[in-house]
Amino acid sequence: MNSSIIRYILGNVLRIEALLLLLPCLTAVLYREDTGIWYLAVAALCLLLGQLMVYKKPDDSVFYLKEGCVTTALSWIFLSFFGALPFCLSGEIPSFTDALFETVSGFTTTGASILDNVEALSHTALFWRSFTHWIGGMGVLVFLLAVIPLSGGSNINLMRAESPGPSVGKLVPKIRHTARILYLIYFAMTLLEICLLLAGKMPVFDALTTALGTAGTGGFGIKADSIAGYSAYLQWVITVFMILFGVNFNAYYFILFHNFQKAFSMEEVRYYLGIILAAVLFVFFQIISMYGSALEALRHAAFQVASIITTTGFSTVDFDLWPQAAKTVLVLLMFIGSCAGSTGGGIKVSRIVILVKTLGKELTSYIHPRSIKKIKFEGKAVEHETVRSINVYFITYMILFSASVLAVSMEEKDLTTNFTAVAATFNNIGPGLELVGPSRNFGLLTPFSKYVLMFDMLAGRLELFPLLILFHPSVWKDLYTQKKISRKFEKSKK
Amino acid sequence: MNSSIIRYILGNVLRIEALLLLLPCLTAVLYREDTGIWYLAVAALCLLLGQLMVYKKPDDSVFYLKEGCVTTALSWIFLSFFGALPFCLSGEIPSFTDALFETVSGFTTTGASILDNVEALSHTALFWRSFTHWIGGMGVLVFLLAVIPLSGGSNINLMRAESPGPSVGKLVPKIRHTARILYLIYFAMTLLEICLLLAGKMPVFDALTTALGTAGTGGFGIKADSIAGYSAYLQWVITVFMILFGVNFNAYYFILFHNFQKAFSMEEVRYYLGIILAAVLFVFFQIISMYGSALEALRHAAFQVASIITTTGFSTVDFDLWPQAAKTVLVLLMFIGSCAGSTGGGIKVSRIVILVKTLGKELTSYIHPRSIKKIKFEGKAVEHETVRSINVYFITYMILFSASVLAVSMEEKDLTTNFTAVAATFNNIGPGLELVGPSRNFGLLTPFSKYVLMFDMLAGRLELFPLLILFHPSVWKDLYTQKKISRKFEKSKK
Repeated sequence: MNSSIIRYILGNVLRIEALLLLLPCLTAVLYREDTGIWYLAVAALCLLLGQLMVYKKPDDSVFYLKEGCVTTALSWIFLSFFGALPFCLSGEIPSFTDALFETVSGFTTTGASILDNVEALSHTALFWRSFTHWIGGMGVLVFLLAVIPLSGGSNINLMRAESPGPSVGKLVPKIRHTARILYLIYFAMTLLEICLLLAGKMPVFDALTTALGTAGTGGFGIKADSIAGYSAYLQWVITVFMILFGVNFNAYYFILFHNFQKAFSMEEVRYYLGIILAAVLFVFFQIISMYGSALEALRHAAFQVASIITTTGFSTVDFDLWPQAAKTVLVLLMFIGSCAGSTGGGIKVSRIVILVKTLGKELTSYIHPRSIKKIKFEGKAVEHETVRSINVYFITYMILFSASVLAVSMEEKDLTTNFTAVAATFNNIGPGLELVGPSRNFGLLTPFSKYVLMFDMLAGRLELFPLLILFHPSVWKDLYTQKKISRKFEKSKK
Repeated sequence: MNSSIIRYILGNVLRIEALLLLLPCLTAVLYREDTGIWYLAVAALCLLLGQLMVYKKPDDSVFYLKEGCVTTALSWIFLSFFGALPFCLSGEIPSFTDALFETVSGFTTTGASILDNVEALSHTALFWRSFTHWIGGMGVLVFLLAVIPLSGGSNINLMRAESPGPSVGKLVPKIRHTARILYLIYFAMTLLEICLLLAGKMPVFDALTTALGTAGTGGFGIKADSIAGYSAYLQWVITVFMILFGVNFNAYYFILFHNFQKAFSMEEVRYYLGIILAAVLFVFFQIISMYGSALEALRHAAFQVASIITTTGFSTVDFDLWPQAAKTVLVLLMFIGSCAGSTGGGIKVSRIVILVKTLGKELTSYIHPRSIKKIKFEGKAVEHETVRSINVYFITYMILFSASVLAVSMEEKDLTTNFTAVAATFNNIGPGLELVGPSRNFGLLTPFSKYVLMFDMLAGRLELFPLLILFHPSVWKDLYTQKKISRKFEKSKK
């Protein structure tokens, strides 16, 4: 394994984190908050470490899938570790485990919080929390690819390891340009949402943090009641933008280049919107009697459905109080998730569609055993290898899910709490049901459960294998033996 | 589609049911219970209908997988429908939906009951309930294959549709002999259990029904407290036999022919026993403080683990009162299930092992992309087609499972009840947790939920596709057009 390139990229990731940490510092200056000093200190630390790590150029830039996965997983762990330090050092979240949980939850765009009283936090901390969503949504390595020229190696492996969805394609031949276009769309849409929120008379700070949370499909709110306190107009704007950020970004790329027909014929997007429509109607009829008017019920149904399927996790009501059938629909939506190539999590609509088509194909093969029809998706026959990897993804997903529920059940909470706590973190949503419902938080869990759920959040965001690979002994053996070899090589040179 | 052979086999199934119904009649005579008359009446009805259906020999015995699946699914529906009539006609279970639920639960070896007070039933009804487990355990079509010569057609398709597990092989070249050997082993082991239970001073009727329920991995008890009231010795005997009936019957075939080495080297059986051992130890340490002595805790742990993993569903304690971690282990065991080729349900150990190996293989492929190692199971490389069909099975399983939970959630029960009600029926176990826990029953559900769960029980027992195929429109179109063609053909002959 090429460990020098891994070191080099990790160094760059730290340098970027140093840069990103300057934004909360700016917030601290604007609001005259002392805590900003800690963000500056950690930024300096990141810069120092980063510079040390990139000081020596990598021996070569050979870069395979294995290196891509290991780099991605370690990047996210580094990011979270250093991102958690300011919370901890400033004393706003004294326990390091809690601070790390909050930061992992931020970067992975989960939005599950351990805070009892979020409104007690400083503006600086609130901004950093929401900003981690925005960074994590599109991915830090994609950002790296957009700004730093990594010559030689096949960088697509980096992007593949970080981007969600069964198949990551390049929009344009150059990976660097693809990454730039993605961030451009992302930035423009976030800006548009901020403007529309400001137009609805939302305070500037609220508009900024809410838009960052929506864009990354994160879900950290700055109010104890999440989005409930805002006007109906603002809630509708957020609903629409949550849905928009759950769409495959390829669609926006097509629209950007005036290829409207191609954008609107995307099968995944159609299924995604179809599922949302069906779920909103179903929930609407379940909860209509609970609210003053049909319009209010529709607003809450649409908001919660959009929030859950896009794995954002904002809420306007405590949906844990809804009828069971409505809650079950929300739990199922947790697993479906948003489109591939969006900022959302979950299994992804495209995978679900292909899985369901697999069922249909199997049934046909019982009736016409000699039929050799392939599954079609987005107008093309799906490659055998894609079907296989989706199957394996689904199996791995279920195995990790079951293991996590078992691990979390070691503390004496009820099954619904354990099950939805794992579902809400593994799918990067945020709130679950019962003890981790929208009006409660993850603070009451034991440290052990918190680390399990942190693993789940990272595994969910990185789509399992890039993180799992770290637990494969051969990766570490590989690094170790390679170091020995290179040391021997250096000795022999002397 | 060859509808005449389907009719012919269904006729034979009814004739067999007529024969089987004579046993509860005999029970009625022994215990001088009037209800026996209804069993006799239904037996006569089955015989009459069966004779009418087999009167005309089938035109040809061409028999493909499609016919095998349709025949199997319809056989099980017929069996359950007529099997439910005596309960209903005798007034012991007045509602037909309830009677059908109880019978489907019996034949599919689920053991989920709608009865509030099982001890109020007549001996005749209790015997019939337990006997349906025994018939369903090994399969009625396997029985048919053993006794009736079906010349020509490829009967392996019948056996394949009815027998559990990813790959059904013949033990000996002739399918008829295979079926006979299986029933021989089944009968001998049941007899052995009866003897051992009698040796522990269990009343004859109790020993008989309990053994029938254990052999079929069913779980209908004749007492309100299931097995709790019997001595420790009897509980241990039942524990051991539950585990034995969950073993792949191929192992017994090897033992029968003195091929001990082959029997004890079966990978599936080793994993099965390994999982049981691990689960018993885990549960034991969770519950040790709840019982008077370590031995008592061990007995309850072993009994419940064996009961759940083999999908039997007997209980000696109300495990809904156990600590959450122990309950979660039991819920996970529900899904694993017993060995393929046993009388138990669930996903099956062999499938789980291959699924987990798939995960390991994928991880390796990230590290060594050019590796083309195949998954090995039972000392052989697993065929690509087997892996694919296991994947599809798993996907279909999860989709049906989710849809069922959603359907059942339409009534206002909690998520744990809905989830475990589906888990307990889909995997043919019996009791779930909360409102469908071991000390409660399924009687409180709405008729709609009952029909959903009946579908789940049948789908689980027949391993999904043979039942699902009935919902494929082309099957019915096929039957319809074929009838028209044959009518035209007859007309032209005249």
